[in-house]
Amino acid sequence: MDENYIYKILNKNFLKKNKSFVNTIGDDAAVWKFGKKQIAISCDSQIENIHFSQKFSNLYEVAYRSVTIAISDLSAMGANPLFFTNSLNIKKGMKDKKVNKIYQGFKDAAQNYNIELVGGNVVIGSANAGLRLLKKKAILNKPKELINSYKRPSANILQSKILLSTGLVSSMMDITDGLLIDLRKLINFKNKNLGAQLYWDKIPKSNLLNKYFRVSLIKDIVLNGGDDYQLLFTIKKNDDKKFERIMKRNKIDVFNIGYTNNNKSIRLEYNGLNKIVKEKGYIHKF
Amino acid sequence: MDENYIYKILNKNFLKKNKSFVNTIGDDAAVWKFGKKQIAISCDSQIENIHFSQKFSNLYEVAYRSVTIAISDLSAMGANPLFFTNSLNIKKGMKDKKVNKIYQGFKDAAQNYNIELVGGNVVIGSANAGLRLLKKKAILNKPKELINSYKRPSANILQSKILLSTGLVSSMMDITDGLLIDLRKLINFKNKNLGAQLYWDKIPKSNLLNKYFRVSLIKDIVLNGGDDYQLLFTIKKNDDKKFERIMKRNKIDVFNIGYTNNNKSIRLEYNGLNKIVKEKGYIHKF
Repeated sequence: MDENYIYKILNKNFLKKNKSFVNTIGDDAAVWKFGKKQIAISCDSQIENIHFSQKFSNLYEVAYRSVTIAISDLSAMGANPLFFTNSLNIKKGMKDKKVNKIYQGFKDAAQNYNIELVGGNVVIGSANAGLRLLKKKAILNKPKELINSYKRPSANILQSKILLSTGLVSSMMDITDGLLIDLRKLINFKNKNLGAQLYWDKIPKSNLLNKYFRVSLIKDIVLNGGDDYQLLFTIKKNDDKKFERIMKRNKIDVFNIGYTNNNKSIRLEYNGLNKIVKEKGYIHKF
Repeated sequence: MDENYIYKILNKNFLKKNKSFVNTIGDDAAVWKFGKKQIAISCDSQIENIHFSQKFSNLYEVAYRSVTIAISDLSAMGANPLFFTNSLNIKKGMKDKKVNKIYQGFKDAAQNYNIELVGGNVVIGSANAGLRLLKKKAILNKPKELINSYKRPSANILQSKILLSTGLVSSMMDITDGLLIDLRKLINFKNKNLGAQLYWDKIPKSNLLNKYFRVSLIKDIVLNGGDDYQLLFTIKKNDDKKFERIMKRNKIDVFNIGYTNNNKSIRLEYNGLNKIVKEKGYIHKF
């Protein structure tokens, strides 16, 4: 690949016409005009054996440097660093001690530069992540409707706005990693002791699933399949009727799939039995 | 590694006390209170064979989905997506056509969600990136001063502020990838036809280099070595004296290493000869 090709594409497709940005391709950071202020945003990556090697640096140093590198970009724009997010991808099986070193590096850099880590995510890169991909394959060999729900998901910006405008939504997130694991995050975000009761029959699913998959795989796809991007939210019990009226008026399909409770576990009523279901771990947001 | 360990570290070290952020660990996006507005920021990664496989999705779809996924997080917070940055890492040797597909995916997603790609960087992951690491090794086997300049660089936030406060700096960036390649970016950012004249004797370098390295390696380290994070900037010729007075007053060491001209090429006066020097390509910012 000719490296100049990248620049050509960027110039052709992404040359900014956006008047709210004051800089162009090639700058150290994007600068956003926000009211009377300017906000500089930089974005970078540090990849093992490309940008660093554990032969020459320990992970504390790598983490510390990665913050310095981003700040250096902001600094070159004359900006005052305020905060950072990161997306950390680590091999499954990495020792606790090493993970701790990474965060110590972030912590010390944050302290030194007087900034804060305010968000991001952690991916634990499993060697058998192939399993998930296989499940996707199970879907991707099937008809267009199922294929597109994975390949071309769409974010529900408008729905989300209407939901929140009701003032009745008490918590909300998007289903990224799977219904169960994201439900666990949603309820534990508020209270570590919460659990939930779900009803299989109330969970919306494509009719095509029944046509193409074994029962056990369907259960796994519906409960643990990621890449869904539907909104998962809670409302107070008493707001039930009012909420449904507003949704109907706005022609938004919502599904009441269960309720939260104080049982710590998540239970699923399935084929007449009500059993505890365990979520499968994958991606960790923070 | 116990996956809960990550949460423990995050909660212990990064639980936000920052009053300018309204959310906490576990949310879909960080929410920054900025004046009377709230700004949501999400951060995510898509890694081949972990999050996607080219067996099941083409790179257009992967790029499109990656934007959708980020927007879905913002949407779940009730935010209106405005723009995104990305850090794209591709294997050296990837076909132009494939790279183009990635950007088409970004472009169509941006169009569909009415947002813009405003910055980021592109890393072309070379199979022989080891070469650069070897150069670092050459430094890392040497005394502490040289080791620390790589391992513990520090971003020059204060210096940058003072430089810019003079009102005399006409362009500035930090040296991330190497003096020559970053100088090329700096001058071409303004004008594709600019070149520069550099003077070896004026470029600041550690005296220890002479003690530990062959002459040819020193030249390569000084001209092409990355991970430096010193500020590289230009001022107008006439502002020379005034600028130097201000720097002296503020006790900031600045080095006049040469000037820009209209010769397109970058020349270096070295040992009495003035020859064109070529930069080595590596990371592309946009």
